[in-house]
Amino acid sequence: MAGIADVAARAGVSKATASRALSGSGYVSDVTRTRVRHAADELGYVPSTSAVSLATGRTQNIGVVMPYVNRWFFAEVLEGIQQSLLERGLDLTLYDAKPGTEGRARIFDDFLARGRFDGLIAVGLEPVDHELERLTRIGRPIVSIVGASSDTSVIAVDDDYAARRATEHLIALGHRDIAFVGGAPESHWAHVDQERLAGYRHAMREAGLAEYVRHAHSEVTMPGGYAAAVDLLGDARRRPTAIVGVCDEVAIGAIIASRRLGIQVPFALSVVGIDDHEFADMFALTTLQQLPREQGIAAVEVLLAEVADPERAPTTLRIPSRLVVRNSTAAPLASASTGE
Amino acid sequence: MAGIADVAARAGVSKATASRALSGSGYVSDVTRTRVRHAADELGYVPSTSAVSLATGRTQNIGVVMPYVNRWFFAEVLEGIQQSLLERGLDLTLYDAKPGTEGRARIFDDFLARGRFDGLIAVGLEPVDHELERLTRIGRPIVSIVGASSDTSVIAVDDDYAARRATEHLIALGHRDIAFVGGAPESHWAHVDQERLAGYRHAMREAGLAEYVRHAHSEVTMPGGYAAAVDLLGDARRRPTAIVGVCDEVAIGAIIASRRLGIQVPFALSVVGIDDHEFADMFALTTLQQLPREQGIAAVEVLLAEVADPERAPTTLRIPSRLVVRNSTAAPLASASTGE
Repeated sequence: MAGIADVAARAGVSKATASRALSGSGYVSDVTRTRVRHAADELGYVPSTSAVSLATGRTQNIGVVMPYVNRWFFAEVLEGIQQSLLERGLDLTLYDAKPGTEGRARIFDDFLARGRFDGLIAVGLEPVDHELERLTRIGRPIVSIVGASSDTSVIAVDDDYAARRATEHLIALGHRDIAFVGGAPESHWAHVDQERLAGYRHAMREAGLAEYVRHAHSEVTMPGGYAAAVDLLGDARRRPTAIVGVCDEVAIGAIIASRRLGIQVPFALSVVGIDDHEFADMFALTTLQQLPREQGIAAVEVLLAEVADPERAPTTLRIPSRLVVRNSTAAPLASASTGE
Repeated sequence: MAGIADVAARAGVSKATASRALSGSGYVSDVTRTRVRHAADELGYVPSTSAVSLATGRTQNIGVVMPYVNRWFFAEVLEGIQQSLLERGLDLTLYDAKPGTEGRARIFDDFLARGRFDGLIAVGLEPVDHELERLTRIGRPIVSIVGASSDTSVIAVDDDYAARRATEHLIALGHRDIAFVGGAPESHWAHVDQERLAGYRHAMREAGLAEYVRHAHSEVTMPGGYAAAVDLLGDARRRPTAIVGVCDEVAIGAIIASRRLGIQVPFALSVVGIDDHEFADMFALTTLQQLPREQGIAAVEVLLAEVADPERAPTTLRIPSRLVVRNSTAAPLASASTGE
């Protein structure tokens, strides 16, 4: 079987260059990469990663554990991580750990303990205590996206700030009766929901609107936001003039519900979200932007730095969101805003 | 370090049972599984998969390659695959191969050639010729979800049938001016789009409506369907009375567009999709149901059978979709249906 030396000879480059061209680590010009790949092709050369593993003690593999892959935020993060790992020639092993499932228990009990990765990225995992204990036993670097941790690196938007800005935007437009929609006390994704709820409450209190504070619970999905908004908006006498959605999916669900109920957005109801979801533009949704793909890329960078230097101090990155004003928010109607 | 014998002794079961309980292969009662895991925990036992690999020549890992993870269909398939692999104690390595990207080239050139998996599931991959040539060189079983192949196993809905049924449903309601929205000749996901377009054309021709056949191109996403529908519906004189969306996301985009344009669904416009997307219910969308999660689970079953017996003949599974009638389709208005 052809070795790297044969490939290098055929391509007319050094072994080190051939190795770089094939492994994707380190700079090689496109022309050289093509030539080396062509030579490898002709010779039927396949790089042996088990040899790499034995030499470096590394698996060339990064584990990613997340509770959902079929939600926008998680899928975007995953794409960012994947893109970044691909560029570095690293594999991605995915663990889909839905809260409260047997599958999740097995991931924590068996899969993670195997340690078939050099490091782990945990996205919105919200581990409970015994899960946390498992994670610390892995003995490999961990970076969290979303969530709070003092022990591992964390990359996340500043959730309190985002909800505060969203609420302040509505207050500045003249709204007072502003409801917060989404999340529940028993939510599995409690940290984010609670931080955002806290940001909303904070902004309301600061503006002297504590009496208007109300939280409509909902599943943190578009259908969840839809259902909660149908309830919330159904009674015209108790209808708020504005809604802060815990995320864009919930906010969009509320917009769809208000269209169904014949409530015009933004004239009769303002809605603001947090995310800048791929559908935000289609629904003209005003929102606080977070860039999940960039968070995924940043997580890979931090994690690989920790793999290279296990003594590295944890990084905490709290990203402030940017307000994107579209057409779902406006000043309240005079009749709606003055109930006195 | 504790071995499997120590775990078995502590749990009071045979080594074979302890092994089954920890590996997840073969039946073990929940009580026994819990007892064995508890014993493994107390002893700090971690099953060695590299030992398994050496003994069996297998990696205990399945590769999954797909062009998107952030679209409903792909994310659902991925969840089905993951769930099924988890139950069997197998890892999942994900390759996100976006068409036309450098990342995709690297997956085919480097990652797949490494062969760090026992088998591969290719979801909606639509490989071009040189990619196909790479795939055949891997020398491991491959199962495709979506797409056509004579060499490997394929699991897919019958796309032609689904679009035909969707179109026939509209024709039965009395529609004649029915447009097909979504996809493009140059689409990277050409096979599915073309099959569905063919099914629509077939139904139209059979009903003597060939003169009404028209195809509005669009990106196969919700915003894509929205944009195409704004164009298609903008001119009232050339407006169709019904739309077949190439998939639910495109159909929902069209519904959102018609609401924006003040066109009432289903009274002034009927819309039917293909998928039964998680949002279909929220938009009351009539659709042809496919169950991507089930397709993922079926793919794992077929693949593992092929891993166990590499001589096994390829399986082709074409699943007929079921029509789910909701509130987005109705008989056309008399004025719209009789242009004579």
